[in-house]
Amino acid sequence: GPVAAVVRELRCVCLSTTAIHPKMIARLQVIAAGPQCSKVEVVASLKNGKEICLDPEAPLIKKAIQKILESGNKEN
Amino acid sequence: GPVAAVVRELRCVCLSTTAIHPKMIARLQVIAAGPQCSKVEVVASLKNGKEICLDPEAPLIKKAIQKILESGNKEN
Repeated sequence: GPVAAVVRELRCVCLSTTAIHPKMIARLQVIAAGPQCSKVEVVASLKNGKEICLDPEAPLIKKAIQKILESGNKEN
Repeated sequence: GPVAAVVRELRCVCLSTTAIHPKMIARLQVIAAGPQCSKVEVVASLKNGKEICLDPEAPLIKKAIQKILESGNKEN
């Protein structure tokens, strides 16, 4: 498998969340609640290189993940 | 936002996919198809430190993401 090149800081990484259009997302990380942070965190790496946090509760997240998962089917 | 500490290799990272129980997943990365790789890739970092690839088409993925997103609500 891919070499784990990143060790997430041992605390919560998201202080605030932003809304974003799913098309802007290049990579989405869903970080389960755990010893390092008691809440679920969703970090989106955008196509413009920025990283933002998304609200795991927002219905948009499920839609965004859906869109990304299905984007592989059609040639883009 | 969190400092982007990792630059994904500029090619596909997943050669094969494995099935896994969602409880084992500490972090899930959904990587959209893009210039680096023409297919969607889902990389799961497991609680035992290993990293595996999941099949983006598998219904299990949507369930796993759902479970992780909702795991933040109840105290675990």
